[in-house]
Amino acid sequence: MSKYAIGVDYGTLSVRSLLVDINTGEEVASSVYEYPHGVMEERIPSGTALPPGWALQDPQDYLDGLISTVKSVVAQKEIFPEEIVGIGVDFTSSTVMSVKSDTTPMCQLKEFENEPHAYVKLWKHHGAEEEALWIDQVIKDRGETWIDLYGGKVSSEWMIPKVLETLRHAPEVYQQSDRMMEALDWIIWKMTGTETRSACGAGYKAFYRHDTGYPSKEFFKALDPAMENFIEEKMDAPIKSIGEAAGYLCESMAAQMGLMAGTPVGTGIIDAHSSLPGCGIGKPGEMMIIVGTSSCHMMLSEVEAGIEGVGGLVKDGIMPGYFGYEAGQCCVGDHFAWFVDNCVPESYVLEARDKGISVHQLLTQKLEGYKAGQSGLVALDWFNGVRSPLMDFNLNGLIMGMNLLTKPEEIYLSLIEATAYGTRMIIESFEKAGVKVDSVVLSGGIPVKNSMLVQVYSDICKRNIKISASTQASALGAAILGIAAAKEEVTGYKNANEAAQAIGKVHEKVYTPNPENAAVYDKLYEEYVTLHEYFGKGANDVMKRLNKIREEQRAK
Amino acid sequence: MSKYAIGVDYGTLSVRSLLVDINTGEEVASSVYEYPHGVMEERIPSGTALPPGWALQDPQDYLDGLISTVKSVVAQKEIFPEEIVGIGVDFTSSTVMSVKSDTTPMCQLKEFENEPHAYVKLWKHHGAEEEALWIDQVIKDRGETWIDLYGGKVSSEWMIPKVLETLRHAPEVYQQSDRMMEALDWIIWKMTGTETRSACGAGYKAFYRHDTGYPSKEFFKALDPAMENFIEEKMDAPIKSIGEAAGYLCESMAAQMGLMAGTPVGTGIIDAHSSLPGCGIGKPGEMMIIVGTSSCHMMLSEVEAGIEGVGGLVKDGIMPGYFGYEAGQCCVGDHFAWFVDNCVPESYVLEARDKGISVHQLLTQKLEGYKAGQSGLVALDWFNGVRSPLMDFNLNGLIMGMNLLTKPEEIYLSLIEATAYGTRMIIESFEKAGVKVDSVVLSGGIPVKNSMLVQVYSDICKRNIKISASTQASALGAAILGIAAAKEEVTGYKNANEAAQAIGKVHEKVYTPNPENAAVYDKLYEEYVTLHEYFGKGANDVMKRLNKIREEQRAK
Repeated sequence: MSKYAIGVDYGTLSVRSLLVDINTGEEVASSVYEYPHGVMEERIPSGTALPPGWALQDPQDYLDGLISTVKSVVAQKEIFPEEIVGIGVDFTSSTVMSVKSDTTPMCQLKEFENEPHAYVKLWKHHGAEEEALWIDQVIKDRGETWIDLYGGKVSSEWMIPKVLETLRHAPEVYQQSDRMMEALDWIIWKMTGTETRSACGAGYKAFYRHDTGYPSKEFFKALDPAMENFIEEKMDAPIKSIGEAAGYLCESMAAQMGLMAGTPVGTGIIDAHSSLPGCGIGKPGEMMIIVGTSSCHMMLSEVEAGIEGVGGLVKDGIMPGYFGYEAGQCCVGDHFAWFVDNCVPESYVLEARDKGISVHQLLTQKLEGYKAGQSGLVALDWFNGVRSPLMDFNLNGLIMGMNLLTKPEEIYLSLIEATAYGTRMIIESFEKAGVKVDSVVLSGGIPVKNSMLVQVYSDICKRNIKISASTQASALGAAILGIAAAKEEVTGYKNANEAAQAIGKVHEKVYTPNPENAAVYDKLYEEYVTLHEYFGKGANDVMKRLNKIREEQRAK
Repeated sequence: MSKYAIGVDYGTLSVRSLLVDINTGEEVASSVYEYPHGVMEERIPSGTALPPGWALQDPQDYLDGLISTVKSVVAQKEIFPEEIVGIGVDFTSSTVMSVKSDTTPMCQLKEFENEPHAYVKLWKHHGAEEEALWIDQVIKDRGETWIDLYGGKVSSEWMIPKVLETLRHAPEVYQQSDRMMEALDWIIWKMTGTETRSACGAGYKAFYRHDTGYPSKEFFKALDPAMENFIEEKMDAPIKSIGEAAGYLCESMAAQMGLMAGTPVGTGIIDAHSSLPGCGIGKPGEMMIIVGTSSCHMMLSEVEAGIEGVGGLVKDGIMPGYFGYEAGQCCVGDHFAWFVDNCVPESYVLEARDKGISVHQLLTQKLEGYKAGQSGLVALDWFNGVRSPLMDFNLNGLIMGMNLLTKPEEIYLSLIEATAYGTRMIIESFEKAGVKVDSVVLSGGIPVKNSMLVQVYSDICKRNIKISASTQASALGAAILGIAAAKEEVTGYKNANEAAQAIGKVHEKVYTPNPENAAVYDKLYEEYVTLHEYFGKGANDVMKRLNKIREEQRAK
């Protein structure tokens, strides 16, 4: 009898289930379910309109997708339910739900069908900007020191700002909900029948610390008197570490999914973090970077240290036995897409069409043989603000060094280089704090498609780089946590780390720094750092002033 | 009997003659002759190849064009030669020739037919960069103070670097030439049979000062021992002020041109400067700006003062009785053209084509109703280096403030604004030195076609602006100097100033600053100044370092 695990990967637009052979790591079947309600940005099903920046989801889509995709992978491979040793789940985060004590989401109650705050607030819901600023203020006023471990600043994408937003704007939703939680924890609750909280979600998005717990009642009271008992009232539940079982599949869900009741369910993990086991990272030294529209940088370490602008540090939050760190860059693929949409001349588009390649590919072709510094350009990758290390979203982009011979592909390259300089800065922040970064693994569509970019990253960061070998690394990581939830006697693996190192996948090819380019990039990186300090740390706040004038003039 | 003057305008690619009614200023006939040899940038007629950056011309084109176009305008209007009261000439500069004492250009000698240095070195010939740096060094070592009146730095486009380049690289051309001169002075010599030098060319391009003459023998000897007697040997000739007669048409040229021998020929003027009389400027207070690929700013003043980065200050060099100042910006239209060629997406090009308008027009349409600062962008217009006030060509461009919503038209606007900030900086330099700038006249194709740009200039410079009414302002200015060469009894005008104010032309429409935009632009200008100081004056020499790396890497 073969043995399999299932990884369930909840993305922004769809959920994917992946069936994995636990001995070989082979991905034997896969199924995707697109959420019928997608991301609700303009209105909810009742017709109520949403302000700009909102992003809601319907939790029924999560349940329906789970059942549909799991049934599909089992059917595809025609396996027996008893061959499934465990299920793991990863989810977008902080994707926040308000629910009743019987798991019913508030949006499914008749009385709240017109209330947007009763829906799931997706990670990229940006309605809680003011609340994030207010929380920052309270933290500052009260001298809360735990914020240092979150990079010193609260993001409106995290859980507590979203909860406070609900309280302020729909107090009845807040009051009548029994529980508020990550969608990740909700789906695990639905599957197991037992309410828990993942250390990953709680730690990265809700200020939970393994040693001190959640922030104090006084802190929550200062946010809003109604929140004084927020933790006891809405949050308190057993915290589960990554790598342990959150529970076991309950009868009713097992029946709907076509699996055995009692199948182990791994503690849920944030989707980005799930790439680490998916790429075979089970111990310190290797940095995992997911390069997408934005980038997310993750590290395991035995060292617990506050690192400038690193937005999360959670014990057992990514892999058991280590502190898991998370940093990020706001604008990576977004940046390149903006450039291709807005700044590439017609002649290039025609040439790409003629050659049957994408504009990205054409630009990359034109850069073949380019040497570091040959363009004379340097850019700041701040088009979306800066997450790590500055944690300042009131900054913007810069490109310099142009002359009349500057070509589009050179500007494109400067944007790629800028994101690599930003990554090097994050790596250096880690190393300064004692967290060594020996090598790098990249995952995401961009590095898979663009080897030029990977080489630039290697040259600039002066690290060997490997690429994720699975196109569904998060789902594979989730499956590994499904394996880890089962007993060693069943799986043969002692823990998640061992399973990750055995069946997580990277391509064999190693990108190594080109010494000549690396030497030139050292000099250019110095220039980037100087501009970073000058424009990012108060010497010249021109970007903030430009943003202010822009907002004032647009409002007129 | 009507009375006419002819203005002959030598441009980069063609020469134009303009027949003007001296009483009404009416432009009654016009004729253009394109130089058959154009600008020689790749090879000379013998086939000898040219290095990059070279720009030569064939002087026979000048003569043939003069005869052809003058005959044409006279024929078009069927006037009698005696109705022509005078001829004036303007010319590109510094456009440098080496000739024999009988006016024969060195390139017409059999022995030099393969020698590029024997040809006319056009104003934009960039072969003398090293020589300009060397001259700077000598000036510095010797503590020559006159350089302050040239903005503190020598341009490779000026005359002496081009002469030194000939001496160093083709010493036999230097030694065997009897005279070295502006093409402007050569054509006047051909017309009048008498060798003179225009105060305009000598003053702006060859370091001649009305009070101290040319630089000393010791200076020239320090440049190169062979140049010790350069002035006596190759240059010395009567200096003629703008507004006086350089001489009278000689028999042979009169016959060829179909005019009367003895017709007064005005002292020649540099083409840009000729716009001043062409736009009716005869006295201080109004700044004339020619907005083309680059921009040239000219002022008359009773005050003699060294102004930072103002590349020329010549008594009687633009209009009689005043000091003429000339400043400049390296990159204006060039800038916009680069943007349209390299950075405008296909969808915009298709939209423009669909509407039957140019991309420039489309971008301008999209900016209708835009408020100052609404784009959130600020740029440095240094894509070609900086002439006034920094006189530093080792700088380059910068654009900042972009986010993912930034649109192409916003970047376009930021480039226009940057050139306007640069102009405001020049205006402020003038005023700081006591040369008041009350209002501005713009000429050139760009301001005529783009009223949005003119309004931005008015808002940013906080000056009323008028536009040249003649599409051939330089030629009209030359004709006015033709009038000034004739006697008052004949023309009714006391001097060039009076004639300019009577028949020079600007449009009636006055662009006045929009107070709301001007207030915002005051703030944005401050940002521009801060960036200008930071990147232009040594606090962060990143641009120079980027240029150095670029050159090194390209050379590999």
